Amino acid sequence: MIRISIDAMGGDHGAGVVIPALATVASRRPDIRFVIFGREDAVRPELAKFPELADVSEFVHCDVAIQMDDKPSQALRHGRGTSSMWNAIDAVKNGQADACISAGNTGALMAMAKFCLRTMANVDRPAIAAIWPNVRSESVVLDVGATIGGDAQQLVDFAILGTGMARVLFGVERPTVGLLNVGVEEVKGQEEVKEAGRMLREADLASLDYRGFVEGDDIGKGTVDVVVTEGFSGNIALKTAEGTARQIAGYLKAAMNRTLMARIGYIFARGAFNQLREKMDVSRSNGGVFLGLNGIVVKSHGGADSGGFAAAVELGYDMVRNKLLERVQADIDLFHSRNPQGQTSEEPVVGTGEEG
Amino acid sequence: MIRISIDAMGGDHGAGVVIPALATVASRRPDIRFVIFGREDAVRPELAKFPELADVSEFVHCDVAIQMDDKPSQALRHGRGTSSMWNAIDAVKNGQADACISAGNTGALMAMAKFCLRTMANVDRPAIAAIWPNVRSESVVLDVGATIGGDAQQLVDFAILGTGMARVLFGVERPTVGLLNVGVEEVKGQEEVKEAGRMLREADLASLDYRGFVEGDDIGKGTVDVVVTEGFSGNIALKTAEGTARQIAGYLKAAMNRTLMARIGYIFARGAFNQLREKMDVSRSNGGVFLGLNGIVVKSHGGADSGGFAAAVELGYDMVRNKLLERVQADIDLFHSRNPQGQTSEEPVVGTGEEG
Repeated sequence: MIRISIDAMGGDHGAGVVIPALATVASRRPDIRFVIFGREDAVRPELAKFPELADVSEFVHCDVAIQMDDKPSQALRHGRGTSSMWNAIDAVKNGQADACISAGNTGALMAMAKFCLRTMANVDRPAIAAIWPNVRSESVVLDVGATIGGDAQQLVDFAILGTGMARVLFGVERPTVGLLNVGVEEVKGQEEVKEAGRMLREADLASLDYRGFVEGDDIGKGTVDVVVTEGFSGNIALKTAEGTARQIAGYLKAAMNRTLMARIGYIFARGAFNQLREKMDVSRSNGGVFLGLNGIVVKSHGGADSGGFAAAVELGYDMVRNKLLERVQADIDLFHSRNPQGQTSEEPVVGTGEEG
Repeated sequence: MIRISIDAMGGDHGAGVVIPALATVASRRPDIRFVIFGREDAVRPELAKFPELADVSEFVHCDVAIQMDDKPSQALRHGRGTSSMWNAIDAVKNGQADACISAGNTGALMAMAKFCLRTMANVDRPAIAAIWPNVRSESVVLDVGATIGGDAQQLVDFAILGTGMARVLFGVERPTVGLLNVGVEEVKGQEEVKEAGRMLREADLASLDYRGFVEGDDIGKGTVDVVVTEGFSGNIALKTAEGTARQIAGYLKAAMNRTLMARIGYIFARGAFNQLREKMDVSRSNGGVFLGLNGIVVKSHGGADSGGFAAAVELGYDMVRNKLLERVQADIDLFHSRNPQGQTSEEPVVGTGEEG
């Protein structure tokens, strides 16, 4: 049996989207159980519409619902112990659930998850992993905004964490991994990225296939299963891709409206356009996953519909079933036992020699 | 009269694209003069096709052509003094030309430009500015890969440099400026970005309208005229946007081929699709401009056609005509005279208080 705790108050649509999603998932995964946290007045009426959930779920009333625009510090102050978000996370900590799903405010969710669950042994800081559509299928990109900056050891930890997630998601035993770097020739990238590359190459882990540096355009190409970077550039890459997709959608719409011929063409090709719109909608690729904590927390997109929230729940379920945390912890411990200070390389760090 | 030095050997197509472009520009700008550097056997036959260039250009033979895959250090070693690229840059240094245009290897061009021209007074490191299409029109994004990392003062310098370019490009007296940052709430961005924001706000320069932080998706929205960041995240943003555009073009092609109805629709809407393809092709937005050096260097895209190279030449021309360097130097000097150490703020740097 796999037990999932649910924050039913998160997202733009709250319980009206969350509860139908749970009914869908329950019909597909007979061994799933839910602990649902939320305000009685919001959740009960929705639960009443899905009597089949009664046998597989438990509902716990919480007074507070974290708002989408609450600051993380505010949310912690007034939501600790009282909010559906906090209690859903706390259920993972106290063993009542195996994973937690919320469509709520990302900043608040990360602040509470860090505070409540703490980081895994040997991991300094958590990461948010995005599932990024590419021309082949999907890849895992992390960190997309949990931590700013990061040393080589942290990038290596992120590589191991992301690999664990990719293994579950894509069913590959030894996912391929790339470190995000810049390709302009005269600058060879950040020192910590280079050092992380050396560490990954020398460690030669059985669980991941390190393929070297990748550039921004390799994400969309699907060059590797896991793209590793620190949270500043990862967040900028994610937002830039979303912006570009929206920009092109705007161009497309304008182009299809400009002439009569184009409008006729649009009518014929409408089905194809609808498919395209789905593919282009980066925000539909659901499930930012918080990695590096003592517990699985999946952040569903705030605007997700019921299908999107169901996908996030099933991702959490799959990660529990595949023992993500245990496997990832074993890899991290192995790496740290081999490299106690995170220092594997005796080579001096060679400059580009072209400054000046 | 405005004199432009041309590296005729750069890019995927060399003189075959460069020389026709010069003929086009010469017909549109009667006061332009060219000094063309390249190999005799490659350039002379092309020049022979455009006799109208004889009156407005001078040709100088150079033995060496820098290859697109030469490493910057290699290029400097075998190309200094001998290559068309070096001589085109050197023409700016020795006053023979007002600006230099090359479609050659970016890394080599930057290495040579830094070595030959050196950075402007009070500027530590140069930037590469991209012209980025957005839903409104275009914006200037810098640095997209000249320098990795950078302190607050450097970001302020980039803001001033980018503003100067935007003023020429868009004809606005006081361009709007944003600092690229992350929006996830629990992390408030890099310290140097925050400090640069404080410095720009307090300086309140007459030449630029500082609008605060922007996120990755603001680039495509055209929220500000100038987006400022250091070269690592800037390069990743640029490459990610290119990758996303290519990925969506692939989806679109596949969608339009999938069903008979879609293929018929495509035939009707072909004109619209061709327009769309042009808009989506980020690489067509020509003209990476090197800023912060004692001279104007415009890098045309390596794959640019004759129209693209002509656009790069005209951009160089416009920047000279608008006295870009003088205006930007005045702003930089003004800023540095007011803030000798780049330290304007007495406020302590406040942490987010949410780590842990």
